[in-house]
Amino acid sequence: MPGELFGRLVAAAGGGWSAYTRHEFVLRLARGDLPEAAFRRYLVQDYLFLLHFARAWGLAIYKSDTLSEMRRAQSLVAATLDVEIGLHIEYCRLWGLSEAAMGAEPEALETVAYTRFVLDRGLAGDRLDLEVALAPCIVGYAEIARERMTDPATKRDGNPYREWLEMYAGAEYQSLAGEAAAALDEQFARRGGEGRFPALAASFAAATRLEADFWQMGLAAAGSRGP
Amino acid sequence: MPGELFGRLVAAAGGGWSAYTRHEFVLRLARGDLPEAAFRRYLVQDYLFLLHFARAWGLAIYKSDTLSEMRRAQSLVAATLDVEIGLHIEYCRLWGLSEAAMGAEPEALETVAYTRFVLDRGLAGDRLDLEVALAPCIVGYAEIARERMTDPATKRDGNPYREWLEMYAGAEYQSLAGEAAAALDEQFARRGGEGRFPALAASFAAATRLEADFWQMGLAAAGSRGP
Amino acid sequence: MPGELFGRLVAAAGGGWSAYTRHEFVLRLARGDLPEAAFRRYLVQDYLFLLHFARAWGLAIYKSDTLSEMRRAQSLVAATLDVEIGLHIEYCRLWGLSEAAMGAEPEALETVAYTRFVLDRGLAGDRLDLEVALAPCIVGYAEIARERMTDPATKRDGNPYREWLEMYAGAEYQSLAGEAAAALDEQFARRGGEGRFPALAASFAAATRLEADFWQMGLAAAGSRGP
Amino acid sequence: MPGELFGRLVAAAGGGWSAYTRHEFVLRLARGDLPEAAFRRYLVQDYLFLLHFARAWGLAIYKSDTLSEMRRAQSLVAATLDVEIGLHIEYCRLWGLSEAAMGAEPEALETVAYTRFVLDRGLAGDRLDLEVALAPCIVGYAEIARERMTDPATKRDGNPYREWLEMYAGAEYQSLAGEAAAALDEQFARRGGEGRFPALAASFAAATRLEADFWQMGLAAAGSRGP
Repeated sequence: MPGELFGRLVAAAGGGWSAYTRHEFVLRLARGDLPEAAFRRYLVQDYLFLLHFARAWGLAIYKSDTLSEMRRAQSLVAATLDVEIGLHIEYCRLWGLSEAAMGAEPEALETVAYTRFVLDRGLAGDRLDLEVALAPCIVGYAEIARERMTDPATKRDGNPYREWLEMYAGAEYQSLAGEAAAALDEQFARRGGEGRFPALAASFAAATRLEADFWQMGLAAAGSRGP
Repeated sequence: MPGELFGRLVAAAGGGWSAYTRHEFVLRLARGDLPEAAFRRYLVQDYLFLLHFARAWGLAIYKSDTLSEMRRAQSLVAATLDVEIGLHIEYCRLWGLSEAAMGAEPEALETVAYTRFVLDRGLAGDRLDLEVALAPCIVGYAEIARERMTDPATKRDGNPYREWLEMYAGAEYQSLAGEAAAALDEQFARRGGEGRFPALAASFAAATRLEADFWQMGLAAAGSRGP
Repeated sequence: MPGELFGRLVAAAGGGWSAYTRHEFVLRLARGDLPEAAFRRYLVQDYLFLLHFARAWGLAIYKSDTLSEMRRAQSLVAATLDVEIGLHIEYCRLWGLSEAAMGAEPEALETVAYTRFVLDRGLAGDRLDLEVALAPCIVGYAEIARERMTDPATKRDGNPYREWLEMYAGAEYQSLAGEAAAALDEQFARRGGEGRFPALAASFAAATRLEADFWQMGLAAAGSRGP
Repeated sequence: MPGELFGRLVAAAGGGWSAYTRHEFVLRLARGDLPEAAFRRYLVQDYLFLLHFARAWGLAIYKSDTLSEMRRAQSLVAATLDVEIGLHIEYCRLWGLSEAAMGAEPEALETVAYTRFVLDRGLAGDRLDLEVALAPCIVGYAEIARERMTDPATKRDGNPYREWLEMYAGAEYQSLAGEAAAALDEQFARRGGEGRFPALAASFAAATRLEADFWQMGLAAAGSRGP
């Protein structure tokens, strides 16, 4: 079954997983009542995040054993630098945020923590360590959007965040996330083994907490956390 | 003048430098009215910090060009693993914190952010980048303790944190910090140049902010930040 | 003047530079009397080399400070994985070498030495260190082909290696090499300084020697080195 | 059984293992008729090798997951920088080689190839990858010396290389090598798994070939390979 390792990592993360995937930021975004200030803060920091995300996939090219591993990492660098950052800039413009303004913004503590944690796992460990630390983001976003799209509480008409949800729930992103989950299985077979599971699970759980902190950083910008 | 680069980096960091070195956590520690919960939180996270600090100096061994550069990095690994972590464990025991308890504690967001930021600077850049990112810690602690020891508001008798201040104000630590500042000059002459200053200053300022966040994380554990 | 740093590095490499760029392998290739066994050996090892060359540019993505630095590194990964390796496979097929056969060949000592030397410079140092170690290859090949194309001793009609020379002497490759030389200047201004020149020159000279060894490895496969 | 992984790696390396451990350089060293020029060449390059060996263990400190892993790597840095390099310098002086002269010698192709191969394995992979690439050296030298000491063809009295053999056959070095082999098992249990064996075996075999090339480089300095 594709995504088997991912499923085990999620199970091992326990309540930390839903604390991230069903974080108040996400639930309110889906209901359409997330304060705009929270979403703007998230957008800017996510732009800064993407720069390090591209660096992580560049690192994965270096850490590849085969031509096909290199090519997969290359396609994710391209997806980030050629597509996602462009879409992001486009999308942010609709929210009144220019590329220059985003680039000039200092990185939030939460952005530094998650991005550098991932890069350190990737450098201290091997490519499987790197991809496991990235999985709460890549595969997690697909689950988050998919789950919200089936939630009756989710508002579509007039939801200012609908486009965001639809992008991550869309076939293209879901397929990319599916490939990322399959790659974890392939690498766990080739570079892993049961003995390695506890350390991978600890790293995945830590990355998941850091992703939840990232949502919280967005919410905190709205001043108050209540509805 | 030894410490010339360090002085320029501090000047470029502007108000961020005193926001770190004269942070409320530090001032209250010196006055002796820092809540114990704040100090305990700091101690535990500083233990976790030291593990990554030793990793950073191990990385510096790898990044050395000469035998003497290797030996200086080696001496800092030894100072951390053989002396400082031991003293820390000893000292924490007096505060009722066992090594096992500290090792089991999850890393705070602030600990992750600063340690991994430093490691990433060191891996993405060269050894000068690494040492500049470490300087707010190594050289900064020496300045913090020295400054507080000359402050009339600092309480000595009956100050539960006196030992901490005296350790960092002591001749041994001051000398180690002086060597770290001198090493920055030597490396800036050999690997730097004016063109490099803006990027080094930005990295130093970011590391300084992350150090201030580290104090804040301690304070936050005390529940309230006021006296 | 674009290529200023490159010119200084070449000058500092002294006779080592022409020992590489006017190596017997190159001169005979241009005259068309290089033994086929030498060229075949070179082709196979150059294929293995390209895999690590792509890894080096992946590493450069990780080591980038700006979006535009990332994009330049990304374009070189793409040039290698999408174009050059493909052309190489195509071209090698004409010489009776299949991709599978080349992938199964063990790396020669000379291939290991040069590729890993470059990667280590890039990891121990910063992106300028990495690009300086790559320059004898990227910029050097352009100079080699250009110089041979203006040499009356070079044979065009009936030279089995003409296509190789024309590829590297062609406008597209010359422009790529020119950009690489310009990038060295830009990075030396931003990350360098005179103090850094001696170490960069030593690294460039070492990489140049390793490139000459690479030609020699090709020649040695022909059994005898005389005409 | 301690050394189980090491034994499997040796078995998988096939004839390559004895091509290294029973290389002509080693056999003649044990018989005492190795040309002095070969041994001097080896000594100088081994000094240069040790600098990168120390860097590799510095890298292992960075790549450690636990305090005890860090401490083992630290002890190997210390063994190299505080003891082995010193002994080496001392020993080389007896052979008329000063430290300055050795430091000024250019690295041989074979030295570059093996040292940078190891560092790249360590950076692209995890700490197990690093230690597997180092094992032909650390554990191999112990086997080489032990085996030669039980060989009737080995000459003791009047053998100018006796001290070298006795150092590596001695209890202290044998114990260090035993710990290195045990560490491989421990890491294979914790970070490995059967799926990982083929890649580790390929890396071990490549490192073993590079070690044999290192002996050959020594022999080649003697001009002729016959007695």
